[in-house]
Parts: sequence; C-alpha cells; structure tokens
Amino acid sequence: MILAEDILQAHLRIKPFIHRTPILTSERINDQTGCQLFFKCENFQKVGAFKARGAMNAALQIDRENLQNGVATHSSGNHAAALARAASIVGTDAFIVMPKTAPTIKKKAVLGYGGKIFECEPTLAAREEMLNEVVKRTKATQIHPFNNDHVITGQATVAKELLEDVPKLDSILAPVGGGGLLSGTLLTAHYFSPGTKVFAGEPEGADDTYRSLKSGKIEASQANTIADGLLTSLGDKTFPIIQQYVNEVMLVNDAEIIQAMRTIWETMKIIIEPSCAVPFAALIKHKEKFAGQRVGIILSGGNVDLEKVLKLFVS
Amino acid sequence: MILAEDILQAHLRIKPFIHRTPILTSERINDQTGCQLFFKCENFQKVGAFKARGAMNAALQIDRENLQNGVATHSSGNHAAALARAASIVGTDAFIVMPKTAPTIKKKAVLGYGGKIFECEPTLAAREEMLNEVVKRTKATQIHPFNNDHVITGQATVAKELLEDVPKLDSILAPVGGGGLLSGTLLTAHYFSPGTKVFAGEPEGADDTYRSLKSGKIEASQANTIADGLLTSLGDKTFPIIQQYVNEVMLVNDAEIIQAMRTIWETMKIIIEPSCAVPFAALIKHKEKFAGQRVGIILSGGNVDLEKVLKLFVS
Repeated sequence: MILAEDILQAHLRIKPFIHRTPILTSERINDQTGCQLFFKCENFQKVGAFKARGAMNAALQIDRENLQNGVATHSSGNHAAALARAASIVGTDAFIVMPKTAPTIKKKAVLGYGGKIFECEPTLAAREEMLNEVVKRTKATQIHPFNNDHVITGQATVAKELLEDVPKLDSILAPVGGGGLLSGTLLTAHYFSPGTKVFAGEPEGADDTYRSLKSGKIEASQANTIADGLLTSLGDKTFPIIQQYVNEVMLVNDAEIIQAMRTIWETMKIIIEPSCAVPFAALIKHKEKFAGQRVGIILSGGNVDLEKVLKLFVS
Repeated sequence: MILAEDILQAHLRIKPFIHRTPILTSERINDQTGCQLFFKCENFQKVGAFKARGAMNAALQIDRENLQNGVATHSSGNHAAALARAASIVGTDAFIVMPKTAPTIKKKAVLGYGGKIFECEPTLAAREEMLNEVVKRTKATQIHPFNNDHVITGQATVAKELLEDVPKLDSILAPVGGGGLLSGTLLTAHYFSPGTKVFAGEPEGADDTYRSLKSGKIEASQANTIADGLLTSLGDKTFPIIQQYVNEVMLVNDAEIIQAMRTIWETMKIIIEPSCAVPFAALIKHKEKFAGQRVGIILSGGNVDLEKVLKLFVS
C-alpha cells in the first residue's frame, strides 16, 4: 500500500532529476468551457512526458548489487525513453523491448539516452516473451510501465505539484491507459486534497477502464484509438486504487480527441500528443459538469510524429 | 526620438493588458548549439505574438476625441489581430485592411476581437490605397504595424522583460521584417544593457534589411520566403535605429528556417510560426559566433495554419 509519506519521499528523491513543470492557463479556453482550467504541462517534462517521474523513482531505489545488471521493460512509448534516461542517470544499462510498430521518435529517444532496443511483434504476448528472455539473460530489474508501486508513486508527484501550485481545485482530470498516472493522481488527491474529485478521460476505442469498473474485474483493451499511449489494460496494482477512488471515467471518441488536441495546439501554442488531449476532450464533452469550477488538467506528454498528427488535422 | 523613459512608461502602460511571457530553456538545444539559450516566448503572448504590445501602447495613447473614430491599419498578420484586440480594450472600432491572401487563422483572429476587415489585392499599393480610403471615410487613427514610435516603444518591452529576467546576456537575437521588434530591442539593449549585442535574423528571400545596411538606404523586399511575417521593407523610423545599433544581420534560407522551426516544435514542445524560427536558424548557422555565450532569442509568434505547416514538414 502506497502511503502519503511515500509520495513525499518520492518527490524529494526525484526532484533533482525532473522539471517542476509549469502550469498554463488560457482565458480563451476558460471562456469556451465555462470553468477555470489549470493545465499541468508534463509535455515539458524531461523525455517529454510524466513518465520521467515514475521511471526515475523506481531506478533510484534499486540496490547496488542489482543495479549493475541493468533495468528492463517493455514499452511502446514514453516509459521506454524515461527508463533509458533514468538508467543513464543512475549509471546502468536499460534493455527496452519495443514493438516494431512504435513511433520512430520514441525509438530515437531511447537510443539517444543510450538504451538498448529489442524489437518484437506488436502483441502483449510477444512483448512479454521477449522481455522474459532478456531478463533471464541479463538479470536486469524489471520496471513495469505502470504496474509497479515505485512507478505509481513517482507519477503521483504530478498532482502533488499541481495542488501545491494551485490549491483547492474542485476537480482534476487525467488520462487513463494502464492507470499509473491516474492511480498516482488519485492517491495524491486522497491524501493531500480530499475535497478534490478526480476524473479520468479514456478513449472509446480503448475503454477497458470504463468496462472494468462496471464488471468489477480487469477487462482487456480493444486498443483501437489514435491515443497510442492509452492502449493498455489496467494492472492488479492500479485497478484497485482506481476502483476505490475515481469519481468517474468519461469516454471520448477519436474525432473529439483530435479536435481537443487541435484547440490546445492552436490556442495555447503548445504541442501535446493525442493521448494527452483525452482529458481535455472529456471536459469539453461534459462541460456542464464542471461549470464554474477550478479544474486541473494533467497534460501528460508532447511526443508526436509531426507528420502523423498534422495529417490527422487535415483529414 | 524614443527615450529610455518612454520604454519604462510604455511597459507600465501596457502591463495590465499583456502577458509577461515565460522564458524557456532546453538543455538539449544548449548541447546542440554550444551556448546557453533563453527563449522569450512571445508565441504565448496575447493574440499569439509580440504585436499585442505595440498595438496596445499605441491605442492607449489616442486622445478621447480621436478615439471615438476608431483605429485603422493594413496588415497581413499579427498586427491586425493585435490592433483589433487593443481597440476592443479601449472601446473603439478597428478597421483592418488585409490582403485577400492573408492566412485564414489571422482573419479569424481579427473577427474574433470584433475588428472590421477590408480585403484588398496583396500589393503594398492596393493596401495603402484602401487604407487611405477607409481613413478618409472614418477619420480613424492610423496605427502602422511598425513605422510608428508608440509601436516601436511597445515592442521594446519584450527585450526589457527578457533582460530583467535574465540579466547580463551576451547577445540577443530577433527577427527583422519591418523592423519594429528589432529597433525596439536595439533601443532597450542600448539603454538598459549596453554590453549586450543585438543580432537580427532575416530570410534570404526577403533580405532587404541586409541590403539596406549595405547601400545606406531603404531597399525593397523581394518577399519570397515562407517566413510570411517578415515580408515587408523597413520604414523611415525603424531603419535609422537599426543602422545605428544593430551588430549584424544574419541571413538564412527557407530550408534552414523549416529545420529550426521543427527542432523547436519537437524539442521544446511549443508552436512557433515560420518567421519566429528565423533568429534560431541564424544562430544554428553561425553557432561558432555564440559559443559559450548567454544568448536571448525572441520567439516572436505562434500563429500558424497547421495545414500549411504540415506541407512544409512533409515536403
């Protein structure tokens, strides 16, 4: 069980290695939505996403003996770069299993931090099989992208900073994929700002969290959305936290995600990735629910293949 | 003649109506360029560009009698939106002459602030003719996009904030089109930080400033570049200031501008327009000149037609 003290300790531990990201506001968007929005810009975070926090927190807690064997994970995206960076900071190897289909920009990022990539077929089975092989050979410490207490605790520091800089938020919105960021956000709100409600935005084409809450067990994701950071299902560490604390999971379709992303690009002049636009899309869709409120929105990341995204806008 | 005191007064005057824009840094870009860069983000300014400052400073100094007749200008871009916004704040009409070819996003911005658009052919002659007609009919006060002391003084506040937040810069780089931002920057450096050298970036396809400095008279711009905010020639108020104080005008071609813009989009996760990338492109091209220096770069604006930019990145 993750305690308030764990989140405080994690924040102290990772602070020297991460950005305290800015919080941006936009009068125009406030006018459009009828609430007061505070965007926590993790797209400006190291490696371009909040994942820098969880990976750093996990890597800093490996003991000396295990550390020399390296760290390993499978990830199609930002956690891969985050773990490669964390490994380079603590001075060890990062073995990263990535699906062949992962975006070029994300592969480049891993290589840029000195990570070693192992490509596999883009299925969960293939990823796990190759990761097991790598770990067996190297004895590296596995650091799961989200189903890991140290990772969840690291991601919890996003909402901690948000609530320090903007106290008394009525609501916080975060995206949900595997649930690392969402469960961290839920724990932070629970411990440090119990009056703040936490909502999740989820793509209709990967609405496993929505369905899991209905059925009471972890459902598989259909992984059919442009929000390519939110394709995974929940894990046994994230699901119970979400089940206990989340206020509501709000679904949005890809057209709504693209429109929300475009609004942020054009109005706020910042680059966010499709997954990152999901909570804002959910807020727009349900704005009557947040009318007059002070709402924090976690912008999770800004790593995009520009050609791909610009084509979304044109088509 | 614009005095130090005028710049101080302008800043106090416009402060309530503009953003104090943030200054961003990027370790990765510092590594790539070998200097310490401070990006002054006027792409986050009201109306998405520094032009909000000059227009506001000018509009706030119109006397009550003239104010009721409105303000007028011809502009293909950000000054148009900036003046429409300033007019709405001081409570008068804005009559904006725009070439038919102006980007849709910029026309929408003018209309969004309640400005009245008069479309004309995309030639300087056509623009001036229609503006004269409008002014004759309305008795509106003309506020030129750059060849106006109040406008220049307003633009000078960008560098003032930059130097307040990051003292002792070795160099500042700004783009040059009509020269409003550049001459304001030169005056601020001259008065408040005389040890700071000021450089301009200019597109090869609109290198009239470069040629004007060589010939000693205002040369016409060939207006052949993707940096569509920098197509104009200098004015008789901006040229003498530039002639007296600028350190050097550095030329870059469109491919270099596109590459620099892309680097900023991808690395810093912020949206800048092509014109805005020109000084950074110049710095990259001449990085040996700035090795080890503390360099301020003014990012002038972030208003882009996303469809157009896609074509630049893909082709």
